[in-house]
Amino acid sequence: MNLPKGFRASGVHSGIKKASKREDIALILSDRPAVGVGVYTQNVFRAAPVLLDVERTPSTSIRAVVANSGNANACTGEVGMQNALRMTEIAAAACEVNASDVLVLSTGIIGEQLPMETVERGIEAAAKSLGDSTDSLESAARGIMTTDTHHKIASKRIELSGDGVTITGIAKGAAMIGPNMATMLGIILTDANVSPEIANKVLRNAVEKSFHSISVEGHTSTNDTVLLLANGASGKTVDENKLKSFEEAVTSVCVDLAKSIPNDGEGATHLIEIRITGADSDEDARTIAKTVADSALVKTAICGADPNWGRIVSAVGYAKAKVDANTLQLNMNDTLLFADGGPVKFDAESLSESIRTNRTTRVEIDLGIGDGHADFWTCDLTQEYVTINADYHT
Amino acid sequence: MNLPKGFRASGVHSGIKKASKREDIALILSDRPAVGVGVYTQNVFRAAPVLLDVERTPSTSIRAVVANSGNANACTGEVGMQNALRMTEIAAAACEVNASDVLVLSTGIIGEQLPMETVERGIEAAAKSLGDSTDSLESAARGIMTTDTHHKIASKRIELSGDGVTITGIAKGAAMIGPNMATMLGIILTDANVSPEIANKVLRNAVEKSFHSISVEGHTSTNDTVLLLANGASGKTVDENKLKSFEEAVTSVCVDLAKSIPNDGEGATHLIEIRITGADSDEDARTIAKTVADSALVKTAICGADPNWGRIVSAVGYAKAKVDANTLQLNMNDTLLFADGGPVKFDAESLSESIRTNRTTRVEIDLGIGDGHADFWTCDLTQEYVTINADYHT
Repeated sequence: MNLPKGFRASGVHSGIKKASKREDIALILSDRPAVGVGVYTQNVFRAAPVLLDVERTPSTSIRAVVANSGNANACTGEVGMQNALRMTEIAAAACEVNASDVLVLSTGIIGEQLPMETVERGIEAAAKSLGDSTDSLESAARGIMTTDTHHKIASKRIELSGDGVTITGIAKGAAMIGPNMATMLGIILTDANVSPEIANKVLRNAVEKSFHSISVEGHTSTNDTVLLLANGASGKTVDENKLKSFEEAVTSVCVDLAKSIPNDGEGATHLIEIRITGADSDEDARTIAKTVADSALVKTAICGADPNWGRIVSAVGYAKAKVDANTLQLNMNDTLLFADGGPVKFDAESLSESIRTNRTTRVEIDLGIGDGHADFWTCDLTQEYVTINADYHT
Repeated sequence: MNLPKGFRASGVHSGIKKASKREDIALILSDRPAVGVGVYTQNVFRAAPVLLDVERTPSTSIRAVVANSGNANACTGEVGMQNALRMTEIAAAACEVNASDVLVLSTGIIGEQLPMETVERGIEAAAKSLGDSTDSLESAARGIMTTDTHHKIASKRIELSGDGVTITGIAKGAAMIGPNMATMLGIILTDANVSPEIANKVLRNAVEKSFHSISVEGHTSTNDTVLLLANGASGKTVDENKLKSFEEAVTSVCVDLAKSIPNDGEGATHLIEIRITGADSDEDARTIAKTVADSALVKTAICGADPNWGRIVSAVGYAKAKVDANTLQLNMNDTLLFADGGPVKFDAESLSESIRTNRTTRVEIDLGIGDGHADFWTCDLTQEYVTINADYHT
């Protein structure tokens, strides 16, 4: 996993996270102005760093992204806004760029003010340790982790007229994950040369199929942000001809990162892959997928390796989408469970065994109505999720 | 807790529930034709008994309600429909009434056919043990329980011109509880004389403020039903003059029963009472209340006695209702946590202690925008909930 050309990265422990020595500051610097676009949370209480980035993107002159974990700088009022601004100023001074060309991300506890002296020392240390190695990239990816058990990086190279461009992304997220995002941060970097318009369109489409198609518990947080920075350092331009392959590559990086989030969902023992086909529309398919994904009863059943398919059909039934009991077919791990308006006899023990012994459980629902489809990912709901979230703050 | 005049009830163990000797059949008989109205689940996959009751209500000639627990008779196709019909025929024969004047309720596992020989024996035994004592009423209330830890009965007497009428309800529900109902059954009986139109209107209004204002995990099941039977045995008629006090009494019985459901939510250690005021509309208030109630992060925080109010504010922020950060005020157990767009300093340890030592946690959100308000009840999300639901089927 490599950084695209012209980018350096670092991650350091500053002390915002008091209980561990894990990285809590990440910094990414582009050696030249980059196109920067973002997709942001729909939560009304957008955190201070989100408000700032919304103002600053789209841009053609982004030089750096500074991020911290351990504190979301959300619901923090005017002081929080000043602190977000101050983070970009500290990073700008340390990297010798303009403060207005720096974007900022925060994730962690809501409603507490950032310890700014600690943050300042951390950003300065991060600026001194910037590098372009895989280690540097991994440090940055760890710098945005909260309850994630491992860092999340995905990378792809595509050929554009002979030589290639690299697309590399990092992400974090393990809870407060619902579509239209959650405490989910993603930074996608590329050395391709892309116009802000194309970058914006490509990111929006990619996010729709990836970060907007995952859920841990359906909670859309105050801080969700996915940024795409394109600095053109490869010398290769994404024009109309190359748009499709570029968009596919960005989407593939985003899907890889997005799936890794519920797979690392708090306490998760299963990644649940939900594929809806035959829906009246793609929107209906997504609505049904999200309803099944957010059902605590479905998620606990899979935690218990229990092929209790009635809970899935029941969730489809209250999704408020077009559904016909007579045409619906449900498969779990390739076992047909419901068809022709009624249950299908199946070997419950062998299906239970298949759920128990595989990390991924596949739920496939064909509505038999139209051409609408959606892929969606979530995780099971375990005792450990409750333990983690009952004890997170205090 | 007494039955209204002219009603008898019973509950017996037939063997549908294999693992326990608990009641699994309930029967209620009116000695004269009763007005019968119902409110039913909005789930597309309505269970067979729901489809049958929808056809048969409103009615002026209901004589009996037969119910079973341990099997929902949902997603069971044509055979399930025949079995629901057959249950009303068996009850009718045993009670010497017309089968078309019998309503039927089922709750339990989805997607399995009822063991009809067992059911038949059970209904016949229930008919033989009908009685009007408190014991009989309690047996019937236990006959509709699934994972409930105790039966749920509420009763109220109101005066109508000298003498009075009684309104007594039973309900069940401990999971699959979302507004617009869930695996939630309720039967409200009264000896008042009420027209079908008034009965219908009163029940709908009462359900809106009670069974539609509770949630365990937001899952709207295939079987939810609340019935109101009014047999007029008191000789007292609810006319326009008495409508208000009658509706208040029915609502009060429904609210008592409804609150008892999340309070007995699977694995619950807290009842969470959410009061929204100052919203743009009642609908907005309800949307916000439900979003907070369904947040796994809010529910786990309260499980852990953690005053992690950021999760509440964040849930308000993604509820898709009109919200203004600058006017919102949040109180938990009378402690102010958020006001004037930012956090308020508070004693976290004493609030945590207050959550830990009280069964009920009160969350009060004043949006400071308009007059819309809503009361909503849910429960916390505990490790025990996951354990119960991971192991329910197999």
